Formats: sequence, structure tokens, C-alpha cells
Amino acid sequence: MSTELHIIPVTGIGDISPGADLGTIIYEALHRQDLRLQPHDILVVTQKIVSKAEGRIVDLDGIEPSAFARFIAEQSNKDARHVEVVLRESKRIVRMDRGVIICETRHGFICANAGVDESNVGAMHQLTLLPLDPDRSAQALRSRLQQLAARDRKDAAPDIALIISDTWGRPWRNGQVNMAIGIAGMESMIDYRGHHDPYGYEMHASVIAVADELAAVSELVMGKTERIPVALIRGYAYIPGEGSARSLIRDSATDMFR
Amino acid sequence: MSTELHIIPVTGIGDISPGADLGTIIYEALHRQDLRLQPHDILVVTQKIVSKAEGRIVDLDGIEPSAFARFIAEQSNKDARHVEVVLRESKRIVRMDRGVIICETRHGFICANAGVDESNVGAMHQLTLLPLDPDRSAQALRSRLQQLAARDRKDAAPDIALIISDTWGRPWRNGQVNMAIGIAGMESMIDYRGHHDPYGYEMHASVIAVADELAAVSELVMGKTERIPVALIRGYAYIPGEGSARSLIRDSATDMFR
Repeated sequence: MSTELHIIPVTGIGDISPGADLGTIIYEALHRQDLRLQPHDILVVTQKIVSKAEGRIVDLDGIEPSAFARFIAEQSNKDARHVEVVLRESKRIVRMDRGVIICETRHGFICANAGVDESNVGAMHQLTLLPLDPDRSAQALRSRLQQLAARDRKDAAPDIALIISDTWGRPWRNGQVNMAIGIAGMESMIDYRGHHDPYGYEMHASVIAVADELAAVSELVMGKTERIPVALIRGYAYIPGEGSARSLIRDSATDMFR
Repeated sequence: MSTELHIIPVTGIGDISPGADLGTIIYEALHRQDLRLQPHDILVVTQKIVSKAEGRIVDLDGIEPSAFARFIAEQSNKDARHVEVVLRESKRIVRMDRGVIICETRHGFICANAGVDESNVGAMHQLTLLPLDPDRSAQALRSRLQQLAARDRKDAAPDIALIISDTWGRPWRNGQVNMAIGIAGMESMIDYRGHHDPYGYEMHASVIAVADELAAVSELVMGKTERIPVALIRGYAYIPGEGSARSLIRDSATDMFR
């Protein structure tokens, strides 16, 4: 029933510019590795290249920091323009301490600096922002890849899933892990509640965030200093569905750590 | 540089009783699948079977709940003896609300119910507790497996790593994921700070909790209702080292969500 999983790094993607047809770029990279998309393949794509392709890049030179951003920046030895961009991407500050700003983003994600990032951008005065709607970005990328695959197969598009991931810290635990911020073609979680374990015990609290687990492992083949922004995961029987990374966001009523 | 990862479910482990030689049981299960341990293999083993083998099982019948446990249980419609066991495993209650008890365990882990679990135990009145020292459990299991592999290879033991995992919830995000609670033979994190990304930017906040990412993916081949308590991960170039899951615990000074 359970089968082996393969996590395959997709290489040769290169620099991504605003407006780039990311679907075609990924599709061609897969082909260069002799990888043809198969039903139930999952592609995990880092947020960074999606944001770049969508032009979600901000030049620090054009940013006028507010008084609050200047105050925060001064206290934490940061660039006030950078802080300003973080604030603009946020709808709420969850915690602020020692230069760390944990934000609730406009989408509702809770993460450091609202997902605003300065590494791997390529220009020293530029920042990347999270995609405006990462689920929609995932859907668009999935559709494009399916379209290309259908053309080559001269057949129906294979049912695949696509996850956009970002690298975030967690409370309580050191180190960052990759998490799913955009999902298309699969359910984000598996709900075992009401199922029975092998001993007949009905499980009460087992809802597994499989999309986050898939995002997490993709980081292991991507690394941070290598240019591998895409992983292909093969062998995982995801549950096809609309899916959404927003379903992974705990609502305020059940979150004891807001 | 980056290579393909294989995540292989290890089947046929069966029921584990207190005192079981878990190393031999896993080793024989690997052999039945024609898997020979190779250098840099990683085994991820669920906490549940480690706890069972170590006799970390509590019979509810013998538990006398305190007044506090009875009070909490009444409010949340729980078994007071179960709450009593959770309290005994805890050194601090982090949050308590609507029947959810987030505890700091004796080891320092922060998780719901101090890791006390009633599913997949096999007897309705029994609970499993986390191993007393999961790193030591991981080391012992790793040593035993290496010993068995060295005997069969008639050569030096292969350098392998071993992770004990458990399934925990997280703040802010719905769903649970597998995390590393015991580690042997590898570093728990990779620290990219001071390294430069492909654009020459020095990365400031990139410490990746690779052991958690390895634990996370293992859940995808284990599932919850199948009897697959072990996964073999092949192809990941972990950093050999002493390692410890305790290094993954954020200390109170840098944790804004205690």
C-alpha cells in the first residue's frame, strides 16, 4: 500500500526575471533531466522564483520609511526601508523583540518579516515579497505545466499537484523548515479522525499537514546555496482536490499562540 | 552535488513488546525487503515503538488522579487519570484551553499532552509516554543496527544516522507533522549563516532543521493507520556528528511564544 518516495532535484533553472514563463522554464528543465510528468507527480517550487517571475520585487531606493519603521529600524540596527516594506506586507504584528518581527501577512500567514526576503535576489538593494495569492500562483503554474505535458503526450494532461514553499522558523524549535504557502491540485491535509488505528482505537487528533511535509523534504534536495529552486516528488499518493495553503492557517479561535 | 532522495517504508515490523530488541527487529525487517544498510543511510523510527520496547507504557487502572487533574478533566470531558499522566510527564504547562494542554515535557520539548498518546497502543487502558532520553534511545538503536550490519558485512559498521520521530501540532498552522525527538549520528541542523548565496549575499537567518525535515517526510510513507513505523531514507548527505534533538529546542531567551 505504501510505496517508495523519490525526491528529485530539478537543476538548470537559472535566473528568473519578472514576466518569465516559469511553467515553460521548469518544464524544459525537467526535460533536460529526461523527466516526463506522470500522473500524481508533485512539483515543489520555492517562493523566491515565483515571486521573481511575478515581479514581486521591491527596490529599496524607492521606499520612504514611516516614522514607526525608522524607530524600529534604529532599535534593531536594520535598514528602515526594509522594515517599512515588512510593515506594508503585514496586517498585524504578532510579536516584536530583539530585531525579530513576527507578522501576520496580508494572506494570514504568520512568519518572520512577513516573508520579505533579501537573500537570493541578485541585486543588493532589492527585496522579494510573497506572491499576492500563492494558491493562485500554484494553480497557474500547475495549469501551464499540464498544458505543456498534454501537448507533448498528445493526450489528456496528467493529474499533478504543485506546491509553492518558503523557509520559515517555528516557535519552540530552533532552525527553519520549508512550509507550503501555495497549493494546487491536492488536499493540503489528511484527516484521520474517525478512522481506526490497527488496534481498533478511534483516532481523535490526527490531521496531518501533508503539504507541509512535502515542502519540508523538498528543502533537503534544494539546499540554500545551490541553485535548485524546484523538486519533483514521485510516489506519493496525494488526495486530488482543490487544496489551498490557506487551509493550513489556524484560525484565531483555535490558535493559542497569536 | 544534490542527488535524488529515496524514502522507503519498512514493513513487517509487527507488534512491539516491552523489552523487545528493536534493533534486531528492524534489521530483520530491512533484510526481508532486501535492504542492506549502506553508509549515510538514515533510519527514522516512530516514537511509539521505541516507547513500547522501552516499556514506557502506563496502565490507566493504576493511576490515582490528583485534585487538579480531576478538575481539568471535568472541564474538558477527559479521563482524569489520563490528565494525571500528562501532568506527571510535564515540567510546565505552556497553555491550557478547551481541553488542549500544551506542555513542556521533562526533556524540554513543547507539545500537546506532553507526548502522552493513546492511539496505536493495543490495549484500551494503556498510554505510551515519550522515551526518558530519546537521544540515548536513538544512539542505542543506531549502535545495535551498526553492530548487526558489521557482523553481516564482516567489515566495519556503516556510518548511519537514526532519528526518532513523533507527530505534533504547531502554533499558527493547522495539521500535525512529524518532528525529530531523538537523533544519533548526524547534526540536527545545517547552519548557512556566513555562507553566501549564489548572488554573493551573506545569509543571516538560514539555519535549517534538517532532522525535522527528514522526520516530516518519513510520515508520508508511514501514514497513521498502516503498520509502518520505520522509514529508510537514502541519498541525503547528512553531516555526521553527535547530534541531539535537544539542540532543536529553542531556549527560553529566544522563544517569543512560551
